[in-house]
Amino acid sequence: MTSSDVTAAAGRIAPHVIRTPVLRHDVLDDWAGCRVVAKAEHLQGAGAFKLRGATNAVLLLDEVTAARGVAAHSSGNHGAALALAGSRRGVPVTVVMPADAPEVKKRAVAGYGATIMECAPWLAARESTLAEVVATTGATEIHPYDNPDVIAGAGTAALELVDQAPDLDVVMAPVGGGGLISGTSLASHGIDHRIRVIGAEPERADDAARSLAAGTLIPQTAPDTMADGLRTALSARTFSIISAHVERIITISEDEIVAALRLCWDELGWRIEPSAAVAIAALRHPGVGGDVGVILTGGNVPRDGRW
Amino acid sequence: MTSSDVTAAAGRIAPHVIRTPVLRHDVLDDWAGCRVVAKAEHLQGAGAFKLRGATNAVLLLDEVTAARGVAAHSSGNHGAALALAGSRRGVPVTVVMPADAPEVKKRAVAGYGATIMECAPWLAARESTLAEVVATTGATEIHPYDNPDVIAGAGTAALELVDQAPDLDVVMAPVGGGGLISGTSLASHGIDHRIRVIGAEPERADDAARSLAAGTLIPQTAPDTMADGLRTALSARTFSIISAHVERIITISEDEIVAALRLCWDELGWRIEPSAAVAIAALRHPGVGGDVGVILTGGNVPRDGRW
Repeated sequence: MTSSDVTAAAGRIAPHVIRTPVLRHDVLDDWAGCRVVAKAEHLQGAGAFKLRGATNAVLLLDEVTAARGVAAHSSGNHGAALALAGSRRGVPVTVVMPADAPEVKKRAVAGYGATIMECAPWLAARESTLAEVVATTGATEIHPYDNPDVIAGAGTAALELVDQAPDLDVVMAPVGGGGLISGTSLASHGIDHRIRVIGAEPERADDAARSLAAGTLIPQTAPDTMADGLRTALSARTFSIISAHVERIITISEDEIVAALRLCWDELGWRIEPSAAVAIAALRHPGVGGDVGVILTGGNVPRDGRW
Repeated sequence: MTSSDVTAAAGRIAPHVIRTPVLRHDVLDDWAGCRVVAKAEHLQGAGAFKLRGATNAVLLLDEVTAARGVAAHSSGNHGAALALAGSRRGVPVTVVMPADAPEVKKRAVAGYGATIMECAPWLAARESTLAEVVATTGATEIHPYDNPDVIAGAGTAALELVDQAPDLDVVMAPVGGGGLISGTSLASHGIDHRIRVIGAEPERADDAARSLAAGTLIPQTAPDTMADGLRTALSARTFSIISAHVERIITISEDEIVAALRLCWDELGWRIEPSAAVAIAALRHPGVGGDVGVILTGGNVPRDGRW
């Protein structure tokens, strides 16, 4: 993949996604000790940057394939994003969700007209149920991050950010499966290879940091973080892009996530989800400075969130 | 007052307030039946447009007056805004708050370094306590809306909105004491007198609608709405500006406020307060159409808000 995949995706999805605003706040600058520009993907359709990748993937299907539908397993933002992207093209969408997924997530997926297939709440059950859906319906699986079209779509957020806030020294994003930081790094370096791309990852789901340190892909073991969007593991594809383009991965404690969430909700009025707060928390770490762009990945939290 | 007061305020406060983004969303356009551009003042410093008026008023004080401090009674956004505006100029701020004001509001005011004077939770007690503060300290009272400098500051949100989204047919804002809609109408008509300025008010606090219908100022009686920022009553000053510039006031039921809040929180990801939802609800009313700008007044709600 190259930055031109991201540029092509940007043109393709522009009519279907929100060009989200960038936000600044003195209080954040003081807290972080640098000048911060935040890309407000919590204001994106379906509440997260995930709509970009899902839309790009759905638009790239040929007519015959599209008619058979798309499918994914997801308990989170990718499912809702795929449901919305599919509904806009009139493509049938099936989302495999664990039976214990939050009601609010199920309602979002169902509200966009997708079919929900419930399964037992472990990965093997999700994968076998999804395989069954694909075998039965001929639907195309759209993986939440290990998919070049999804990665290219995710990178369009950074492409807009660098356009809205020129001359950034650093671009930061949280790391789960690595799709966002992969697209972000391709987009950023396509514009200016001197931009430092830095990832942020929970200490309790730190496979990317360990993989980058070891120089080889190390599996995620027992992720246990409140940043539920970042419990996923790198793929060979995202590890390869990250190795080439990402300067470092900063790891963040659960206490730091809570502190960043409180800052965003109570001081800035930014109602972001814990995964997004991971990148905010990383702003304070040594070595981050100058003009820093950060991607606020999403805002899908229960209304009664407490931290 | 004229639109030039708003223009002057805009230049004065620009370094001290956020030029908030404007937001659009297909889902809102479909719901409202018109093209909507929303001015995101819930992302303003201190969480509401109130920072604009408070900042303008504080900056206009001469050195000697400023040194004696400013004071207001407020259980809501004006108190926090004045506290923040004062702290930035190093002006002592006293906010008179009812003893039963929410802890989160008290913390915000105290967090910006203001002195809180508690009083009994009725208007007479607030006013007498404030009068005492003013008499004792020589502080200048900054009224939350019956003050030309505050009105001019409030109008700067609309000035930015009309700049960010040219060619609006309608500009809408909620109406409480009438400061925001006064400034909004002056700003809008200063740019293009053909812009239709429409207010939105809770049915259960409808003194502006009744006053406009009667052609004379009718007192607010027993306001009882969840839109706590809109329980205040017009002053002679705001009634006079509204009479000259505002086409009509649409009244909104409590059920409509709840429906608009749910749309904003659950579908759009806009975490606004009930007062802001009043103007969103008004978008669906007959006679509102074309390109419509609406001011989202604030986002100061408890994290565990339920509706």
